[in-house]
Amino acid sequence: MTLFRLIDLFGVSVFAVSGALRAREKQLDPVGFVTLGVVTATGGGVMRDAILGRVPPFVFQDELILGVAVAVSLLAFAVRLPHKGLEYFDAVGLGFYTAIAAQLAADRGLPPIPCVLVAVTAAVGGGVLREVLVNDLPYIFRGTLYATACILGAAVLLLARRLGAPDALAIGLASALTAGLRILAIRFNWSLPQAK
Amino acid sequence: MTLFRLIDLFGVSVFAVSGALRAREKQLDPVGFVTLGVVTATGGGVMRDAILGRVPPFVFQDELILGVAVAVSLLAFAVRLPHKGLEYFDAVGLGFYTAIAAQLAADRGLPPIPCVLVAVTAAVGGGVLREVLVNDLPYIFRGTLYATACILGAAVLLLARRLGAPDALAIGLASALTAGLRILAIRFNWSLPQAK
Amino acid sequence: MTLFRLIDLFGVSVFAVSGALRAREKQLDPVGFVTLGVVTATGGGVMRDAILGRVPPFVFQDELILGVAVAVSLLAFAVRLPHKGLEYFDAVGLGFYTAIAAQLAADRGLPPIPCVLVAVTAAVGGGVLREVLVNDLPYIFRGTLYATACILGAAVLLLARRLGAPDALAIGLASALTAGLRILAIRFNWSLPQAK
Repeated sequence: MTLFRLIDLFGVSVFAVSGALRAREKQLDPVGFVTLGVVTATGGGVMRDAILGRVPPFVFQDELILGVAVAVSLLAFAVRLPHKGLEYFDAVGLGFYTAIAAQLAADRGLPPIPCVLVAVTAAVGGGVLREVLVNDLPYIFRGTLYATACILGAAVLLLARRLGAPDALAIGLASALTAGLRILAIRFNWSLPQAK
Repeated sequence: MTLFRLIDLFGVSVFAVSGALRAREKQLDPVGFVTLGVVTATGGGVMRDAILGRVPPFVFQDELILGVAVAVSLLAFAVRLPHKGLEYFDAVGLGFYTAIAAQLAADRGLPPIPCVLVAVTAAVGGGVLREVLVNDLPYIFRGTLYATACILGAAVLLLARRLGAPDALAIGLASALTAGLRILAIRFNWSLPQAK
Repeated sequence: MTLFRLIDLFGVSVFAVSGALRAREKQLDPVGFVTLGVVTATGGGVMRDAILGRVPPFVFQDELILGVAVAVSLLAFAVRLPHKGLEYFDAVGLGFYTAIAAQLAADRGLPPIPCVLVAVTAAVGGGVLREVLVNDLPYIFRGTLYATACILGAAVLLLARRLGAPDALAIGLASALTAGLRILAIRFNWSLPQAK
């Protein structure tokens, strides 16, 4: 199993837990847990693949990823998972998904601004969908520096590619920057201004 | 006109009525009735086709299905349709859509867990979209044994295929199981536990 | 730059402003402004392209359109844009998007009712997505003659094509009818009845 595969499974698990925790707040049944877990974990990737014309979307061809998302969601229904540090783990998944999606979009020949949009959509799309399903306002609109970290990470990936960096390095740099910025934002309560 | 075609038209009509009834509760205009009717009746199938790469989605190639969904929705605006027994009719449509989608996904070569996910998405996707459009929590999250019946039905279809059952038999069995389980759940108030 | 291109950029700008104004009402951050601006401006076109199998969707291949949508949204965060007359400008964009989408769907060989559905989806889809993202009821359901104008415009385009009208004439007629009807509806408070 490659390192990328391991990071992917880690990210899916963390995202699924964050969906399942939302299901607990809303007092849902196991179907609600699995739906929010799977949607949070895979929704962004499905949007990414739909935009890029990768059909069926990757997650529908990969039983392990989907199986892990389902299993983690059911586990989170059965027992109260500790969620201390979840935000930090989430930042790692966020960085990885941003970098991979920006890479795929650039490989597909998309121009820079669309590449960044695909990357942000892939990284935050699942979380936004989760909030839409439970009728809450996506928290990425509330000054969280969440999507912002993805935008900067995607830009770095494109820049590194332009400068001739090998793929693994570009992905590593972009992931680290996105995750790092997000972790700093959590740690020091950095936020964007909101309109009045 | 084949039996499958008749069941399909029946299912679309029932789903469109359930969308239109929601539009009446929300006191919408004819556009709202048609939107919720068409979205409920066809939303799941469109998601199914998007996942499987069937483009344009089937309903956009089939004037009769779409015309019936629009006509039923407008009729439901013009007169108060009786909705006694609607839940039972809905169960029949649910079973049929589950079985057909699981079959299409398996034909496309998807692994078992993704096949089940496609089937459930096709069966409940329209209803979930309807609730999202009117800002309510999808009731499939509320212990209704609705998606659960679809999961079991899709699993039975895959099992019957694996055992070499002819298509019509596999679809018949899976449809009947899904519909039957759902009807029993309505009749005897069966439900899943909700998290606290 | 062609006339069509100019109208397209004008329409995108107007739609982006209407998304950004919604972001101001909800007191969102710049990410919220850009998300609602871009979703309103491009969401309908992305749905249109997904239905018709145009991959990647047009807006992901066109940096100018996307760049304008982002820039307008950020500008609307930075300064309070005047929105007097916005509804009238919006009607012009609405007419244009309706006509173009109906044309594309007919070129793809779709039957009439699906063509009309694609056109309406393209024209109002972004606005509906915007309302879903901020958890409000899409106002197209509230008797506004908004989607209705699109339905009639799309029907006129198909009729003009059937009668052998050249493309530019058909698009001009359909755009003008949609926009004109919508403007009259605003001016004279025309509305559809709502169910009780």
